[in-house]
Parts: sequence; C-alpha cells; structure tokens
Amino acid sequence: MSVPVKALLFDVFGTLVDWRAGIAREAERILRPLGHAIDGIAFADAWRAEYQPAMDEVRDGRIPFCRLDVLHRRNLERILPRFGISGLTPGVLHDLNLAWHRLDGWEDVAPGLTQLRQKFLLAPQSNGNISLMVDLARHNGFVWDAILGAEIAGDYKPKPRVYLAACDALALAPDACMMVAAHSKDLKAAAGCGLRTAHVARPNEYGPGTGEPGPSVPVDVAARDMRDLAAKLGA
Amino acid sequence: MSVPVKALLFDVFGTLVDWRAGIAREAERILRPLGHAIDGIAFADAWRAEYQPAMDEVRDGRIPFCRLDVLHRRNLERILPRFGISGLTPGVLHDLNLAWHRLDGWEDVAPGLTQLRQKFLLAPQSNGNISLMVDLARHNGFVWDAILGAEIAGDYKPKPRVYLAACDALALAPDACMMVAAHSKDLKAAAGCGLRTAHVARPNEYGPGTGEPGPSVPVDVAARDMRDLAAKLGA
Repeated sequence: MSVPVKALLFDVFGTLVDWRAGIAREAERILRPLGHAIDGIAFADAWRAEYQPAMDEVRDGRIPFCRLDVLHRRNLERILPRFGISGLTPGVLHDLNLAWHRLDGWEDVAPGLTQLRQKFLLAPQSNGNISLMVDLARHNGFVWDAILGAEIAGDYKPKPRVYLAACDALALAPDACMMVAAHSKDLKAAAGCGLRTAHVARPNEYGPGTGEPGPSVPVDVAARDMRDLAAKLGA
Repeated sequence: MSVPVKALLFDVFGTLVDWRAGIAREAERILRPLGHAIDGIAFADAWRAEYQPAMDEVRDGRIPFCRLDVLHRRNLERILPRFGISGLTPGVLHDLNLAWHRLDGWEDVAPGLTQLRQKFLLAPQSNGNISLMVDLARHNGFVWDAILGAEIAGDYKPKPRVYLAACDALALAPDACMMVAAHSKDLKAAAGCGLRTAHVARPNEYGPGTGEPGPSVPVDVAARDMRDLAAKLGA
C-alpha cells in the first residue's frame, strides 16, 4: 500500500454483529409471552428480507432519506400480518423495533477492535443510524472514534457518497481509509471510491454455510475474523 | 428533574480543553524556529478573536456552512500579517491550523468523563468539526459515544438547530439531554431548546480571572469542574 491506512470503517450488520440470532431471540422474548408462538429465525429472515428493498426506495430517490430505525419500523409492520400478528401496542412495537439496538457482536469483535484501535481510528460505516450504533457499541463494549455511515451521508450504501462522506468527515483521502466488511458488494463499492478494503469471513451469517467464506472481488486483505485482521494489519 | 437525563453533550473549547495555552504553545513551537519571535498568547487571543465573527457569517447565512477547520484557516491567514508574518509554506500553514487538534484538556476532564460515562451517554457538542473532535479525543484520552455538534447540524451554536440535531441523532427528547458548558450563553440557548443544563467553572479561560466562575443564567447544575459534575450527577 502506497499511503498508510489511518482509519478503518466497519460494516456492522453481519460483519460485527449477528443480526439473525439477535433478532430471533428478541422477537421470541417479546412476542411469545403475548401469545404469538413465532419461529424467531423465520421472523428475523422475513424482517431482514425487507431491508434492501426499503433502502432501494431511498437510493433511487423514490422517498427522501430517513434513518434505518424508521425503515425497520415500517418493515416490521409489513411482516407482522404474515405471522398472524396484529394489535400490538405502540410500546411493544417500539420495543420490538429496538431489537436491532440489542444485537450481540461475534465473539472476536470486541477484542479485535480493542487491538485495532491501538493503531487506527475506528468508525462504524453502517446503514444503521447514529443512535442504533451508539446502543450497539454500549451493548457490546465497542469503542469508536466517531459514528459515521448513512445518517451522516443522508443516503445508503453502496451509494458512493456514503463512503466519501465518511473519509471527508475524518479529513482523510479515500486511500487512507479501509472499509472492513463481510460482504463483497460493500467492498467493491468502497474500492470504487478509492478506499482500501478488507474482507472478514462470516460464513454463517444467514445460517450455516450461507455467508461469504471469502471475498468474491479483489481486496487488500482477507481475514478469518477481527483478531486475524488485527494481526494482518500489524495492530 | 422530571425526566431522567440519559446523555451529556459537551462544549469543548474552553470547557474541556485549554485552547489559549495550547495555541500559544503550538504557535511558538512552529513559528519561532522559522524566525518569527511571536508572543504565543497574543497570537492565540488574536486567532480566537476572529472565531465568533467568522461563525456569524454562517449563522446569518452570508456564507454557506463550512467546517471550523476551514474558518480557522481563513482566520489564521487574516491575522498572520498583523504579526509581520508572510510567505509560510502550505505545509506550515496546514500544520499550524491543526494546532486546534492538539489542545490539552484541563486536568479534571479525562477522569471526570470516565466517571460520567458509567452513567450517561457522552458526546461533544462543539462548533469544532468531526475530525477535530476525533483528534482531540485521541490526544487527551476522551472516550465518546458519538461525535455530534456543528458538522452534524450544518450550522453553528447557539443556533437552536444545533442543539436539536444532537438530541435527534441520539433519538432522545431534549429534556433527556444535558448541555455542559463553561459559557452561560451556550447554556441559555440549550435551555431555550428544552435541554437540561450544567455549568462548569473555567475562571481562567482567557487568562487569570477572565472566565466564568459561575453561571449568569439559571441552570440545573453548577459545578466546579468535571469531577464535581460527576459527583453532583451521582455518576
């Protein structure tokens, strides 16, 4: 690498936290005592399936930017009837929507970030909003230098402006920043904006054997997990 | 207080860091070896005197929002001739402008923030830009949950939108947020937006006996320093 990397920007859902197990757990915890015997994993997958189409509406300019908590809430109200659920109180809907704020990190993430922070500036570069990132960080003991991502940029990845807004906020050239993600599509878009890229394997993101065991695009670094990334970046 | 406070928002220049001693030190360190025998304190005061008028241009809509690093650079180039200085290289100008990124915290701040962070979300709510806040935090060991303030809002305090944008980014009602500052004007504006307020005494901000030893407006809490604030807020 010609320019030293100064900041690492992290994808969050799937890369740092296990959204599938977390949403399944939270949905069952909240809904089962109310008499809704849902399958948490099916609920998580249904909710997540609405994620990209909802952001596409923003990316394509069909609706103005709104933060992910708002899209999650709309998507939640869309899937509930499919599980035969209606009549939840506003308080329950709100609590259920905040399930995304209570996801657990993969076990390597907190120690890996602590190690990486000794050498680099660290920021989430997620489609999640600021308060969602703040809550996930507190829940998991992640320490960030800043919260960047969609809410700063007013648009959703993989739109180029999201990557460029993060570099700009840190006053760094794109090639002094490295995007870290478990998703090749995210890394391809970041590389297209001039950022360095690191892939982290999350082979079980959508269930056993469903995630990316390695990158399908050229990257600067491919790591098994966050501790391996720290070792490979000399942190 | 009727609603529990969940987040503390901090003014930074003067409240957390000693800009006057820091700019004086950095200006002398950079300029004296180049043959410019400046009085660092006079230089710091001159640079700071341009601060409010420059932000007023943004507040009044005479120029579009630009981050404080840009205003600091313009102000620097304005004051240099008054000190008989010309012909600095772009590299020296850049380094000198980044003096604001290398200010030292008052001695009570790092331990006080560590204590406060056990009970509250903490974020700088400064007119300084994101990268400036990131660098000050690293320089002083401050740990933030998010970087909020002018760059998030696209305007400068004490404009109401700056306070409201910070609460909104944290998804908190204004009265669940407390503005912490050594400046009554900042606290008055925050209170006008519905935030709680805490005054911290910095009686020597502009030299001995020049700062505010106490608030000149009604506040929720008045503290001697950041450790006293932590004690008074039960953190």
